[in-house]
Amino acid sequence: MKSMAAYNGREIPKEDKVFAASGKALDAVAKYGADKVINATVGALYDDEGRLIVLKSVEETMKSLPAASYAAYAPIAGTPGFKKAIVKAALGDFEPKSYIGVVGTPGGTGAIRNAVANYSQPGDRILTHSWHWAPYKSISSELYRGIERFEMFDAEGGFNIEDFGYKVKKLTRNQEHLVIILNTPANNPTGYSLSMDDWYGVKAVLDEVPMDKKIALVLDVAYIDFAGEPGEVREFLKVADNLRANILPIIAYSASKTFTLYGGRCAAMICLAHSPEVADEFVKVCSFSARASWSNSPRAPQEVIERIYSDEDLLKAVEQERAAARKMLLARGRAFEEEAAAAGLEIVPFRAGFFVTIPCDDPDGLCRKLEEKNVFLIPLDKGVRVSVASSSEAKCRRLPAIIKEAMES
Amino acid sequence: MKSMAAYNGREIPKEDKVFAASGKALDAVAKYGADKVINATVGALYDDEGRLIVLKSVEETMKSLPAASYAAYAPIAGTPGFKKAIVKAALGDFEPKSYIGVVGTPGGTGAIRNAVANYSQPGDRILTHSWHWAPYKSISSELYRGIERFEMFDAEGGFNIEDFGYKVKKLTRNQEHLVIILNTPANNPTGYSLSMDDWYGVKAVLDEVPMDKKIALVLDVAYIDFAGEPGEVREFLKVADNLRANILPIIAYSASKTFTLYGGRCAAMICLAHSPEVADEFVKVCSFSARASWSNSPRAPQEVIERIYSDEDLLKAVEQERAAARKMLLARGRAFEEEAAAAGLEIVPFRAGFFVTIPCDDPDGLCRKLEEKNVFLIPLDKGVRVSVASSSEAKCRRLPAIIKEAMES
Repeated sequence: MKSMAAYNGREIPKEDKVFAASGKALDAVAKYGADKVINATVGALYDDEGRLIVLKSVEETMKSLPAASYAAYAPIAGTPGFKKAIVKAALGDFEPKSYIGVVGTPGGTGAIRNAVANYSQPGDRILTHSWHWAPYKSISSELYRGIERFEMFDAEGGFNIEDFGYKVKKLTRNQEHLVIILNTPANNPTGYSLSMDDWYGVKAVLDEVPMDKKIALVLDVAYIDFAGEPGEVREFLKVADNLRANILPIIAYSASKTFTLYGGRCAAMICLAHSPEVADEFVKVCSFSARASWSNSPRAPQEVIERIYSDEDLLKAVEQERAAARKMLLARGRAFEEEAAAAGLEIVPFRAGFFVTIPCDDPDGLCRKLEEKNVFLIPLDKGVRVSVASSSEAKCRRLPAIIKEAMES
Repeated sequence: MKSMAAYNGREIPKEDKVFAASGKALDAVAKYGADKVINATVGALYDDEGRLIVLKSVEETMKSLPAASYAAYAPIAGTPGFKKAIVKAALGDFEPKSYIGVVGTPGGTGAIRNAVANYSQPGDRILTHSWHWAPYKSISSELYRGIERFEMFDAEGGFNIEDFGYKVKKLTRNQEHLVIILNTPANNPTGYSLSMDDWYGVKAVLDEVPMDKKIALVLDVAYIDFAGEPGEVREFLKVADNLRANILPIIAYSASKTFTLYGGRCAAMICLAHSPEVADEFVKVCSFSARASWSNSPRAPQEVIERIYSDEDLLKAVEQERAAARKMLLARGRAFEEEAAAAGLEIVPFRAGFFVTIPCDDPDGLCRKLEEKNVFLIPLDKGVRVSVASSSEAKCRRLPAIIKEAMES
């Protein structure tokens, strides 16, 4: 007996490319030393010395938790204090007129999974942009849905509203439900953020959807708190809060990056509903999915976030630490952009965030060439992803010329 | 717009009965004081003063973790040290001849979810016993599978091998794949543990399954470390390790009870495969499901368990503390049994564990009557569940007469 599993139409790869690349990078660091290696594979924020950044204020709050507060089960949708706090964290100063529903999840993946499970049907296609986080496809596939991609950029490098509109029309012709996933601001892998004009374009498309079609607009904002000033990066919320009744915005908000609690597994899905019934239904169906997939979510990070938002000084400390880390990250991104321009290295439209993407025809080949120089990137379908989050500013300055050279060799 | 969700054939209840009952119990405690209330709703081990038991040695290990060790992402299937440690914890001194595969999950729910997703097909029926943990049905429903129940006990109160055999035959007639979930030892909700004779009966049934049918035998052993002596409660492993090649045993082993880390969300699924290919496939498909459902699992409990198993003294301390807690729990169960016999209260066959179940015709009505006396239990389909884990021995002694009286009033 060589196989016992039921594949159920899922394409299950032998190995995870991200994991494989990061493993090779760690081997190289062990062999040659950290200063001889550029490990730009990691999706977490590292300091210039190559250490994972954990906000001190978050660490101290974690240390202060009494055992019963992390050892006990949390309610399925999260503790009441966490739910209140995470809405504040996600929305900032924005006060929506929509009805809010909140369900905690173990990371952003769980939020997206629950949105797909509850707002589309088996066999449906989920719509997202052409440059996208690979797990969107796996999540859809695990739930017997497919993926449809709209071209993210037009010939001028602008957000491709036309193709977005075309695909929304195409899919709603045959589907009663449509889940759309937009990963912005500071998109993974490109670092692109939709402008307010892009957002008005999205709204115009959604305004045209017939009222008997139901759209869940999933906004994966995993990188929002490292994308720019807190108020500015949340400006789009006024558009999301002002869509028609057949469009349900669902914000997938993760504590992984915002609170540097990647391994803590904490996030929330937050809906902006037109009616209390739709908000209640959201909580009900997403709680059911949680109960039937992972049950309750980890309690420790929920307790930490509740404590942060019930202590003004602590909140200020967290925000200041995060602002410093964000400043460092934004400087790295700008450094990479400048040197890419100087070296004549084309990059996919970039605004901010953890990653920059370089379009290329043979991503696996390019990564292999770079590995010989102890430079480790992630190969995508049509480009390579560089983590500026895990590379010092000095390394970000050196990278574009190294990549350009490898592309031409 | 009153509804936006796609129900996809799932029966989604308005409210969770366990959550509702436990909420009422907590209200009563707040109003009347803990000594006036018996809250036997909770699925966690409490001391006689009504406090959640957290093993001190586990708590101290948690406190000792450096921030980077819990804040970083764990690999999808778990850290290497955790995977090694959790197999030791699950199997104890037993050395299987089968090939082991391990994938960490955020709690036992995730392990069962992944087993159903990867070893059955949409539309299939999952087989379990008539008294079962309610989420088995939700998990199956969320994945577009149904549930088939075999009668757990025969007329003499023995494990009903005959009906088990009949249902296995019936389902394998039409399904290529069959997932069977057995929750033993110390079954939730009954406290029943399969005897070795029961196990040989299970083996005899499985030996008859045609070789072109593929069976995943999911053993939910969530309560194993509170079911009796560590060696004795693992004796069944020699049967699981000795099945035919078309039967894949998958042990769902949870850290929730064993390490009192309920809210930490840590468990593992461990397969006992006939071939390295099947073990590798298990890791591959279950890792894919993890990546596409919750991504990686929480790191802190993985680090704690790795540390415990790499420090002999610490391991001994954990085991001694757990043994004391187990002794307390077993005494509560015996106290309940004795008083039930004295009061003439029928109980479902009980061996050990967190729960005892009383069969009755109107579980909701009985629970309502008991609530008037500040006694809180969980209503099931055909009985009420009493948590001896959350009630002192003294309360366990009082409960049977109180329940008997309410049944007759």
